Amino acid sequence: MVFPMKLLIPGPVTTHPSVRAAMAEDYAPWDNDFRAVYADVFRRLLPIAGGTADRHAVLPLQGCGHFAVEAAVRTFVPRGAKLLLPMTGAYAERLARLADEAGRVVVRLPVPARTRTDVEAVIAALEADPSIGHLALVYSETGSGLIHDVPTLAAAAGRLGRRVLVDAVSAFGVLPFDISALDAVDSISFTSNKALEALPGMSFTVSPIDRLDASRGNAGSWSLDLSDVYVHQSGGGSPGARRHVRSVTGAARFTPAAQVVAALAVALDRYEAEGRTARLARYTENMRTLYRGVMALGLTPCLPEHLQGPIIVNVAAPADPAWDLQRFVDALKARGFLISNFYNTPEPSFRVGCIGAIEPVDMEAAVAAMGAALDEMGIRERAGTPS
Amino acid sequence: MVFPMKLLIPGPVTTHPSVRAAMAEDYAPWDNDFRAVYADVFRRLLPIAGGTADRHAVLPLQGCGHFAVEAAVRTFVPRGAKLLLPMTGAYAERLARLADEAGRVVVRLPVPARTRTDVEAVIAALEADPSIGHLALVYSETGSGLIHDVPTLAAAAGRLGRRVLVDAVSAFGVLPFDISALDAVDSISFTSNKALEALPGMSFTVSPIDRLDASRGNAGSWSLDLSDVYVHQSGGGSPGARRHVRSVTGAARFTPAAQVVAALAVALDRYEAEGRTARLARYTENMRTLYRGVMALGLTPCLPEHLQGPIIVNVAAPADPAWDLQRFVDALKARGFLISNFYNTPEPSFRVGCIGAIEPVDMEAAVAAMGAALDEMGIRERAGTPS
Repeated sequence: MVFPMKLLIPGPVTTHPSVRAAMAEDYAPWDNDFRAVYADVFRRLLPIAGGTADRHAVLPLQGCGHFAVEAAVRTFVPRGAKLLLPMTGAYAERLARLADEAGRVVVRLPVPARTRTDVEAVIAALEADPSIGHLALVYSETGSGLIHDVPTLAAAAGRLGRRVLVDAVSAFGVLPFDISALDAVDSISFTSNKALEALPGMSFTVSPIDRLDASRGNAGSWSLDLSDVYVHQSGGGSPGARRHVRSVTGAARFTPAAQVVAALAVALDRYEAEGRTARLARYTENMRTLYRGVMALGLTPCLPEHLQGPIIVNVAAPADPAWDLQRFVDALKARGFLISNFYNTPEPSFRVGCIGAIEPVDMEAAVAAMGAALDEMGIRERAGTPS
Repeated sequence: MVFPMKLLIPGPVTTHPSVRAAMAEDYAPWDNDFRAVYADVFRRLLPIAGGTADRHAVLPLQGCGHFAVEAAVRTFVPRGAKLLLPMTGAYAERLARLADEAGRVVVRLPVPARTRTDVEAVIAALEADPSIGHLALVYSETGSGLIHDVPTLAAAAGRLGRRVLVDAVSAFGVLPFDISALDAVDSISFTSNKALEALPGMSFTVSPIDRLDASRGNAGSWSLDLSDVYVHQSGGGSPGARRHVRSVTGAARFTPAAQVVAALAVALDRYEAEGRTARLARYTENMRTLYRGVMALGLTPCLPEHLQGPIIVNVAAPADPAWDLQRFVDALKARGFLISNFYNTPEPSFRVGCIGAIEPVDMEAAVAAMGAALDEMGIRERAGTPS
């Protein structure tokens, strides 16, 4: 960026300078010093998911959150098997497509706009088709900004003997989750660059070890096979390569984004110092400052406040014919704030992330910048159609 | 690293401080300024593969080189179809396994140790089985350090009407390659963190556009579908998401490792200033300095010098009972040089990378450090069994 810029896209997020600084070094991923860093990152991520080392594993995967979600689907849902998916918005659509393309059978459960996924509807859909083995859920739906009640939905599926996959890409680390209390959960997938406040390049899944063992051979992709990640990480070694030094926890299958892992270790220092509930409270206050601020500017948030989650706020595009998303984005950028330049909602909107190393005071400044940008663009008719 | 350390693992490599410095910033991947950087990286990678913008595309993929190789196999070889694979070492074994797990049928062509893949043997294998549609080749086999004659092998396969996939993960940017002259090539796959001298986290494939168009629906994985990367990058947009701003070249499907891309742009400045042949000459001189240096220490390189490639040197483990790979690695590390702490050869060896921002003078110092380490360990019987 040309000057210090606050990233209010819903990820990658604004990071602390100490986190970014760890990126500017060379690391040797298989070096014993680095393996210790890598293993320590896993050890520290596990309790954030509510996992315990005897029952659960943290599975790292190179790439973005989408890759971790596809890896979880491939690893735990056999090819040709069915998963139920509440269609909550753009990220549920993504999950449906990735499962379709992987040859899994997606049973789509419609979810009306601006509503939480109804647990009774999920139960009815699962009871109606005993051949559905899995329920897949998006925890924080970036398409809408709405948080779905994953713990309740997962527990209900568990009572019916079904397994659960959770896409927590934008939720992990702030929304409550306890995999130890939810025996039905096969996977919770997330990334380094959202609420953990590190940089993009690595994704992770936390899963029960017994389920990883039981799922060998499902994935149909070596790259995206979480059960193989587990075998390798726990000392199985790399087939086709005889190793003199036995793999230990912290061994990588393939070259990881080592700088991203090192930066995540620093970000976890900050996470642990702040604590989950304090981080959630900060994000919630960021969201409230933004939400009420855009209302005061005459804009229309897409969700009523009682449904608005703390991660991402979608605001309906103003009805004024002078509205142009890219011009608005550029006008905000000139004032030091970057928001998304595309939308994921049925009706046009702009979307603003509330996560990262930002404070309510930053949100106040962002709202002021939005007001100035709208004035500059001559936008008088600011109300819009929520979606 | 605790102090400035030269990475002589065969990747990730030692990088220039200016390259690493670009990692320590926040970037918004869909921001128009960043899209321009992203698109410019593609524009600059294309001629390194011998591609032209009207006929070829650079396809970025989050993750490591292994992911790009799997993506190429999935995209261009239909499920259930056959590929011929000369078994040149550990990385050919990897390619075989990833293709097997993806449901492609691997026909393994044995290649004796310490020999180049024989073009006549490849031709005979292809002629013997007309149902083999593809030949897959590892250009620089990290398992052995031997360079295989990909241009000649690819041309021969082309004359028989077969298609070719090239794993150039450790070769790209230094070994000669001209996709425009090799009509049979579907893909050349590589990574940011080897001979391009940038950091790990992104991989790439260069492919003919007409082949990407013809290969839609093959991949069986949205994450690893290069034809979808092309559709998105060329303006097709993201299904399931209505976009206000049309995607342009430089649009990413999913969050890329943006810092890695920014660092690669800086690394390409250095690459273009040096030039391919000068970089190859520098690596070759690094290799020669190392090769002759270890010979002078009484060690046994695994390959005769006329077969030794410029990327990676494997040295047979000394026969002395005092030999211990990890102790040797640690003793070198204490002297500022990191080499691999595992081996990929049939017989025990140690392996040293000759690539990255290092010079022959660094190799002279590394050889001196090896001598001191062997003395410290009391290794007198330094000859070993090559593999």
